[in-house]
Amino acid sequence: MVNVAIIGHGVVGSGVAEIIINHKELISQKAKNEINLKYILDIREFNDLPYSDKFTKDFNTILNDDDVRVVVETAGGATFAYDYVKACLLKGKSVVTSNKELVALKGAELLKIAQDNNINFLFEASVGGGIPVLRPIAQCLAANDLSEITGILNGTTNFILTKMIKENMQFDDALSMAQRLGYAERDPSADIDGHDAARKICILASLAFGKHIYPEQIKTEGIRGMKLSDVEIASDMGYVTKLIGHSKVLGDKVSASVSPAVIPTSSVISNVEDVFNIIKVRGDAIGDVAFYGRGAGKLPTASAVVADVIDCVKHLAARKYLFWEDGDADYVANPDEVAFDYMIITDAANKAKIEKLFACVESKSKDDSFAAIVEKQTKNSIKAKLMDNNVTDYRIFRVID
Amino acid sequence: MVNVAIIGHGVVGSGVAEIIINHKELISQKAKNEINLKYILDIREFNDLPYSDKFTKDFNTILNDDDVRVVVETAGGATFAYDYVKACLLKGKSVVTSNKELVALKGAELLKIAQDNNINFLFEASVGGGIPVLRPIAQCLAANDLSEITGILNGTTNFILTKMIKENMQFDDALSMAQRLGYAERDPSADIDGHDAARKICILASLAFGKHIYPEQIKTEGIRGMKLSDVEIASDMGYVTKLIGHSKVLGDKVSASVSPAVIPTSSVISNVEDVFNIIKVRGDAIGDVAFYGRGAGKLPTASAVVADVIDCVKHLAARKYLFWEDGDADYVANPDEVAFDYMIITDAANKAKIEKLFACVESKSKDDSFAAIVEKQTKNSIKAKLMDNNVTDYRIFRVID
Repeated sequence: MVNVAIIGHGVVGSGVAEIIINHKELISQKAKNEINLKYILDIREFNDLPYSDKFTKDFNTILNDDDVRVVVETAGGATFAYDYVKACLLKGKSVVTSNKELVALKGAELLKIAQDNNINFLFEASVGGGIPVLRPIAQCLAANDLSEITGILNGTTNFILTKMIKENMQFDDALSMAQRLGYAERDPSADIDGHDAARKICILASLAFGKHIYPEQIKTEGIRGMKLSDVEIASDMGYVTKLIGHSKVLGDKVSASVSPAVIPTSSVISNVEDVFNIIKVRGDAIGDVAFYGRGAGKLPTASAVVADVIDCVKHLAARKYLFWEDGDADYVANPDEVAFDYMIITDAANKAKIEKLFACVESKSKDDSFAAIVEKQTKNSIKAKLMDNNVTDYRIFRVID
Repeated sequence: MVNVAIIGHGVVGSGVAEIIINHKELISQKAKNEINLKYILDIREFNDLPYSDKFTKDFNTILNDDDVRVVVETAGGATFAYDYVKACLLKGKSVVTSNKELVALKGAELLKIAQDNNINFLFEASVGGGIPVLRPIAQCLAANDLSEITGILNGTTNFILTKMIKENMQFDDALSMAQRLGYAERDPSADIDGHDAARKICILASLAFGKHIYPEQIKTEGIRGMKLSDVEIASDMGYVTKLIGHSKVLGDKVSASVSPAVIPTSSVISNVEDVFNIIKVRGDAIGDVAFYGRGAGKLPTASAVVADVIDCVKHLAARKYLFWEDGDADYVANPDEVAFDYMIITDAANKAKIEKLFACVESKSKDDSFAAIVEKQTKNSIKAKLMDNNVTDYRIFRVID
């Protein structure tokens, strides 16, 4: 029998508790060992649950119980959660977390502690909720050199953009609807300003390319105030607007960014709607592979956590291959200095200027707007040309397929 | 050091040899053990390869060398390959194969032998080429009850249908083009009559639902002679035509089929074009997840085989959880007796009859054709109604999203 503890009985933590208790036989069979939920750490009172006897308010009860071999951290944040996770790993307990902030900020350090103690630190649920993506990257693609990751990593922003595209809703109305439906927080900043997606691209790129990328190294733009007219003109040109996390190997460096982008409707990414996520990975042997599903939600996320718990129990004495080394300040290139395809959207009045300044691959006028996809170049070069020619009111979107 | 042998130096086998030799350091590092390619079994002569010294024509050289712990079978077919794989497993050697015919016909038996001998029998490359899908189903979804699998499982037919949809090519012309490009065999029957897809849905459904489904239990229709006018009228209604492998849990039974189907363009599956594959899996906790990529090709498939080899080397003394029990004659229901959504396409002259016989959810007339999506019911009930009313020239497509 293997004893497990859960830190934090919130949405995900309670889902994990329910699955471990209600599906005990099935998961114990899959783990080839009985899995027993021994403690749940939470400062709140939960007196009317069938498993109320498992609650404790004292972290040391868990830390000092050598029978607890696996700890699930679903408290969130990177302060207490960091202390607790680090202490558990140092005590030789394997840890499973769904906490993307913690992994994005401290992943390399915690993975190193896990390695030194020959235990596991797993966090499949931290990216893409229930979508299996980190494990396939780490294991199934072991025979590939990975070179690029592209993803729709945030369900809230994808829901808002889908409403704008499909129902011509204004940004503010779509955001209000997302809040009403519980897809967006009252303070939606982490989602709509791109920070949540940035943490996820940090984790994906760190794992895929082997070296930690920190959130502050990622150029992050969100979709706050996205103009419906921009979404519409892109749509008329055959592109859908998405918030895209992207990272690409450039020799010894990588570029990494979160930004609104336009995707041709022929791309598999373009049809990923509402709260769904997709993560596309490019490898030298495999070409493009992609993983799709619900990126959040209590049960999908909790089921991914439980799958990691099962894996820890099966590998109490052997480490899963999941590791990356620490990063450094020079590792991440500025994506605005890397040449990509871009769409410029500006006032119709600027059409002649744009056509003179750039080789336009495709363009369209609609109402008061003019949009053009320009020859591959850096964003900074586009901005410089526009500034030199007194074009000040414009938006630039990466073209990604 | 772990010694590996390859049976069959064809397209995939030679790719595996090249990866093991050319990336020896990387894969040995990932396996935490040196991986050495010791033998390649092939009856042909390969005298001018850098690794010509590894060839043997005698299977017993491999079988009786106790230093060979992992055998890769890429010979194909289910006769010699079956004998070789079985003999290796009985000798305590782990086996990795890309051979879908073998796994679809003999999977349960070979998995049982592997289990009895505490070794691994892995076959990630048998479905979806390089797309990681069997491992995520077996491991990452361990905390889910899976209920349904839907897939575009054959690249050749998907290429042909894409050419019909996008370039209005007739079936025969698209098939010829696929043959010219090397996507289709001179005898294209295994692909276009659906047998290849049937083997893959056997493997997927056996793994997901825990009990072997045999190819002869699967209702299999291909796309031979698909009418361009059918593809076009479906397209005008907002549906793309795809060859779909599908299996669904129905209480104690499952339905399983391969058939042309129509997919709404809003579905993620609809944008999977050319030789790409997608496999969508539904679980109780996770909802829908999908895995996308190139379903065939030397390097994608070989890289999936090598990932399995790495896994075998890492788990020489421990089994991966990959197992299903034997099937039985009553396990698979006739999909034509299960209610689904269907599109009927027939002569425009039958429009009034169809509208009288069925509650039509959507319908369209175009040139000489009439198409209607009818209220959910069994295919056999549709056929009976049509026969009773002397409608004889029609096609019925499952509607799937």
